[in-house]
Amino acid sequence: MKYAVFLIKSDDRKGLLATISNFFYEKDFNILRCQQYTDLYENKYYMRVKLDIAELHVTRRKLETSFKELADSLKLEWEVHYSDYVPRVAVLVSHASHCMYDLLVHQHEDDLHCGIPLVISNHPNLEHVADKFRVPFFCCPVDKKNKSEQEAKIVELLKKNHIDLVVLARYMQVLSNDFIESYNGRIINIHHAFLPAFKGADPYRRAWERGVKVIGATAHYATEDLDEGPIIEQDVERISHEFEPSDLKRIGKDIERRVLTRAVKAHLEHRVITSGLRTIVFPI
Amino acid sequence: MKYAVFLIKSDDRKGLLATISNFFYEKDFNILRCQQYTDLYENKYYMRVKLDIAELHVTRRKLETSFKELADSLKLEWEVHYSDYVPRVAVLVSHASHCMYDLLVHQHEDDLHCGIPLVISNHPNLEHVADKFRVPFFCCPVDKKNKSEQEAKIVELLKKNHIDLVVLARYMQVLSNDFIESYNGRIINIHHAFLPAFKGADPYRRAWERGVKVIGATAHYATEDLDEGPIIEQDVERISHEFEPSDLKRIGKDIERRVLTRAVKAHLEHRVITSGLRTIVFPI
Amino acid sequence: MKYAVFLIKSDDRKGLLATISNFFYEKDFNILRCQQYTDLYENKYYMRVKLDIAELHVTRRKLETSFKELADSLKLEWEVHYSDYVPRVAVLVSHASHCMYDLLVHQHEDDLHCGIPLVISNHPNLEHVADKFRVPFFCCPVDKKNKSEQEAKIVELLKKNHIDLVVLARYMQVLSNDFIESYNGRIINIHHAFLPAFKGADPYRRAWERGVKVIGATAHYATEDLDEGPIIEQDVERISHEFEPSDLKRIGKDIERRVLTRAVKAHLEHRVITSGLRTIVFPI
Amino acid sequence: MKYAVFLIKSDDRKGLLATISNFFYEKDFNILRCQQYTDLYENKYYMRVKLDIAELHVTRRKLETSFKELADSLKLEWEVHYSDYVPRVAVLVSHASHCMYDLLVHQHEDDLHCGIPLVISNHPNLEHVADKFRVPFFCCPVDKKNKSEQEAKIVELLKKNHIDLVVLARYMQVLSNDFIESYNGRIINIHHAFLPAFKGADPYRRAWERGVKVIGATAHYATEDLDEGPIIEQDVERISHEFEPSDLKRIGKDIERRVLTRAVKAHLEHRVITSGLRTIVFPI
Repeated sequence: MKYAVFLIKSDDRKGLLATISNFFYEKDFNILRCQQYTDLYENKYYMRVKLDIAELHVTRRKLETSFKELADSLKLEWEVHYSDYVPRVAVLVSHASHCMYDLLVHQHEDDLHCGIPLVISNHPNLEHVADKFRVPFFCCPVDKKNKSEQEAKIVELLKKNHIDLVVLARYMQVLSNDFIESYNGRIINIHHAFLPAFKGADPYRRAWERGVKVIGATAHYATEDLDEGPIIEQDVERISHEFEPSDLKRIGKDIERRVLTRAVKAHLEHRVITSGLRTIVFPI
Repeated sequence: MKYAVFLIKSDDRKGLLATISNFFYEKDFNILRCQQYTDLYENKYYMRVKLDIAELHVTRRKLETSFKELADSLKLEWEVHYSDYVPRVAVLVSHASHCMYDLLVHQHEDDLHCGIPLVISNHPNLEHVADKFRVPFFCCPVDKKNKSEQEAKIVELLKKNHIDLVVLARYMQVLSNDFIESYNGRIINIHHAFLPAFKGADPYRRAWERGVKVIGATAHYATEDLDEGPIIEQDVERISHEFEPSDLKRIGKDIERRVLTRAVKAHLEHRVITSGLRTIVFPI
Repeated sequence: MKYAVFLIKSDDRKGLLATISNFFYEKDFNILRCQQYTDLYENKYYMRVKLDIAELHVTRRKLETSFKELADSLKLEWEVHYSDYVPRVAVLVSHASHCMYDLLVHQHEDDLHCGIPLVISNHPNLEHVADKFRVPFFCCPVDKKNKSEQEAKIVELLKKNHIDLVVLARYMQVLSNDFIESYNGRIINIHHAFLPAFKGADPYRRAWERGVKVIGATAHYATEDLDEGPIIEQDVERISHEFEPSDLKRIGKDIERRVLTRAVKAHLEHRVITSGLRTIVFPI
Repeated sequence: MKYAVFLIKSDDRKGLLATISNFFYEKDFNILRCQQYTDLYENKYYMRVKLDIAELHVTRRKLETSFKELADSLKLEWEVHYSDYVPRVAVLVSHASHCMYDLLVHQHEDDLHCGIPLVISNHPNLEHVADKFRVPFFCCPVDKKNKSEQEAKIVELLKKNHIDLVVLARYMQVLSNDFIESYNGRIINIHHAFLPAFKGADPYRRAWERGVKVIGATAHYATEDLDEGPIIEQDVERISHEFEPSDLKRIGKDIERRVLTRAVKAHLEHRVITSGLRTIVFPI
């Protein structure tokens, strides 16, 4: 089925729902799903409309032009995505393969609507994983001197491959603010802890020392403030005193895997709207 | 804040959302929350609209009459509820007090929007719980001969107290089909197992014998088929081999408590629409 | 059934399990449950032994004396508790009643092995809850000047009532270090957040602002460092963007309730051993 | 670290723990972990002892002979496993790759202590997955006539490869009783539902029709009664009315994946003891 997804945000005003849904009704669209959320607390309106476009009577350009008119008059921020465009995802990794595997497996099983045209790493050791799935693997090793040079190389790779989404699948290098700004809202990172607890390094060790009874992981959009971007997805597991730091790390791997894949899936299905530090994530 | 909630169901057709939301927009309502769900699988449309009616310009009767016109033309099934009406709940119990306590405590803490004008039991032993909360307690003991007579007495009590919702909070008597029909969609039962597993008696014992690793409880609308009504809420807890049947029963009590209270809360906030065996439960 | 529980901790050495279990075997005890845990990471040994003492052939004094000999020779830290002693719990509250209710209800349903001879508050408004359960209620209002005076009054009440465990069931006053030291390991606090995230005030508001997808609560022993004591129990619930701060607070109440009651239950059943910041909590 | 794991079960009697732990103490073993569980309900004793054998002073044969003497005198059922033996696992699949992938990935990441020398399928289409991990793939297509012939071929493959554990990773053929008996306690199956609910075919579809709010998956030892073997692991996810049968299936895949891998891991680490329909699963 071919469909389009409109993501809309705006200050809340009376009649937004009626006016927007009317727009699509008059154009005789079949609305597959319409989700909206009014944040009464901050007076914001968020909306996601999924339209059947199998029998679109006009060009997409024309549809967009006419929606733009409406949006301008209502002062909506909006974007539209079409299901027949397959987003292109770059996976960045370092040493740990678990998140990378989970993304590649889900993509292969058609549970992630994307292509993964390349994997980039600062280490050579996960080349064999990329090879299994016949994904080109690029190694950009970073040392004290060549950091910005290597980042430039990465940016070049991303551009050449028309990358829509960068997934930091346990990529252990800090990216420059320039990089993050130029891919603003299009970089998803997995943090191996239940943020905002245990920001920074070695969180499982510190969770063990603190004696917590639940550990977790957090997938979020990358921002200039490390570990402070808008959270897309979190999950947790109960642990007991019997689990050593190495057990927490192992259990954590399974949490990280599923949290990152879910977050990437939500993004690729255009179910996420960000609003400052918060995200609206429509459940399906 | 005063509000009205419209619950709507219908076969799905193009334009329902636009037409209905337009109705409220033209009447200049402030829509606090609008939730809808299209079941593409069974081609059904469900909608919940929450309106600010603090400054309603017409009588409620008039609002309803004009919505009825729209609904008739669109063949909608619908109902409307007003926040300033406090629903009246009867709690039916037998020996176990945990669900009864949880309902009374949440009601006292203003977390359940209802009054509880009476508790009815087939045993005298929970009178002291009702007394604590100054709720009238009626004992209708059932034996082999007086079952229908006692049920008639219960119906009379419910009618005299203008009861809107009957909560079977571990009430261990089977109700007649007549009773269930006359309160169709207005009786919530808690089953002490994760349905459809372990229907029938002594589910924790049987769960132990079967060696399950997760136990649960289920709140559902009562129907003529015992343990087969539409499910409103379920929850579970992990258990291990170390837990004996008595432990499962104790853990189960805490699951039952919260599952029943959540289901009653969803019903009282008019967040539930039933459709055959299924329920649409809007999350908030 | 009458039983005794020995809680033991020690540096780990070969033969501890054999030697200690032999001690009880030679005395012809029926061991109902024996749980031990060796922390290979910090080289510590923890043990809980639950003995049937229905037909104890010697006095308890004598049993303890002979175990003390063994313990001294092995350099064990230990304590013993008898099931026919009913621990005495003081509940301290301020404005919020939900944790207090949950403790009283569970105690009334025989799911907490304790007596609750008094409730203390710095406000008068929860007296009616104590009254329902016929528990004496003492109001010790605190202002800028009388803080230490009122704390002295509380200590006096605790002593006069031979209190074994102080439960801070959303008691919003900071206790002095002297107080905390004198009840070291015998004060359980509920923190309304998933520690170590959101330490300090108004955590649900801050959780909302941070846009987390999971909220939680933490029960811990009180120590001089606020919100930093050994964690006994934590639990969480998933939330979505639709939940406002007031919803988080309400959901949080239900998490706090069950987390605190579980922690108190674990303590009262002598299933908790602390070790620095960490706790060993045997599951049953 | 080299270690041995003893798994012991027996009727419960006084002194078992003391006698057995003494045996290992006298032999000067370093006990890494000792876990036992007394089922007071059925009067059974279960024990798992993990020993450091880095500096074993006698042959393993001799250790086993001397433990056998003790075991015979106490009428213990027992087995011993050594960490330097890498168990050999055969994975049987049909069309669905998700469980197979998860097992192979975890094995590659050293999170499953086993070798996977072959994959067997009744269909050719997952050969490419086996190829990725360079695991030999055998296709034994089954039709109405050749069922027992093909099973004989499978048995031959298992024997030739000295297989210790057979994992039915969504293998959709029923195995004969002879097969199941000859691998009794060494076949793990994943059922795509939360047993005992939804036994049999197409459980996600039926879960949707029944309107459940939680779905799950179950890993169990295969027995002659389909879907009735001892349960090793279960897990669940909350769902809502918005999820269609195809969504349940997709979510179910992620539950099945992790449930099966956890069960296989528990078995391979010798943490599972079965007792009739029940399993004792030590948590770590």
